[in-house]
Amino acid sequence: MRVGYIVIFTSKRTPLNDDGYQDVAANLEQEVKKIPGFLNMQSIRDADRNGITISYWENKDGIMAWKKNREHATAKVRAQNWYETFDVKIWKIEDSWNP
Amino acid sequence: MRVGYIVIFTSKRTPLNDDGYQDVAANLEQEVKKIPGFLNMQSIRDADRNGITISYWENKDGIMAWKKNREHATAKVRAQNWYETFDVKIWKIEDSWNP
Repeated sequence: MRVGYIVIFTSKRTPLNDDGYQDVAANLEQEVKKIPGFLNMQSIRDADRNGITISYWENKDGIMAWKKNREHATAKVRAQNWYETFDVKIWKIEDSWNP
Repeated sequence: MRVGYIVIFTSKRTPLNDDGYQDVAANLEQEVKKIPGFLNMQSIRDADRNGITISYWENKDGIMAWKKNREHATAKVRAQNWYETFDVKIWKIEDSWNP
């Protein structure tokens, strides 16, 4: 269960606009947990609609499988309705420790 | 300016209790920016008082200098007044890319 990769998703949600977002987000959270190699995630959004989601992965295959996931791909088409801005970065981990 | 290390600080704030927190947090944000090797940070806290702060560092020396920083050390003594729970993890980065 060693973390090999971290994916950091930062975003700002559009205002006053759900347009299916909550349902899709809840469904994707269930879907991603089924992907082999997915370990866990942490997600926070503040009152100004800025969010950080960090997901932890055992291997790159899991991240690639999630990228090709059908529900995920369908959601990505609608991302511009939900986010003013967003950014995704993948970090390959060499080592980690608690200070 | 390559990111060599990421520090992820997750926490839950105590309720209804500032006790100097905002001033100290604002001051520490100015202090950490002076540390050689510090690159940037992202910080989010939601309405349930859960927070994620990610800081990006060029090298380990910067993280060690921040650990020894006087204002930072003084603040850490008071951390149990401000946080119900918190966790810090340092991630050494081997590679990164946008998907």
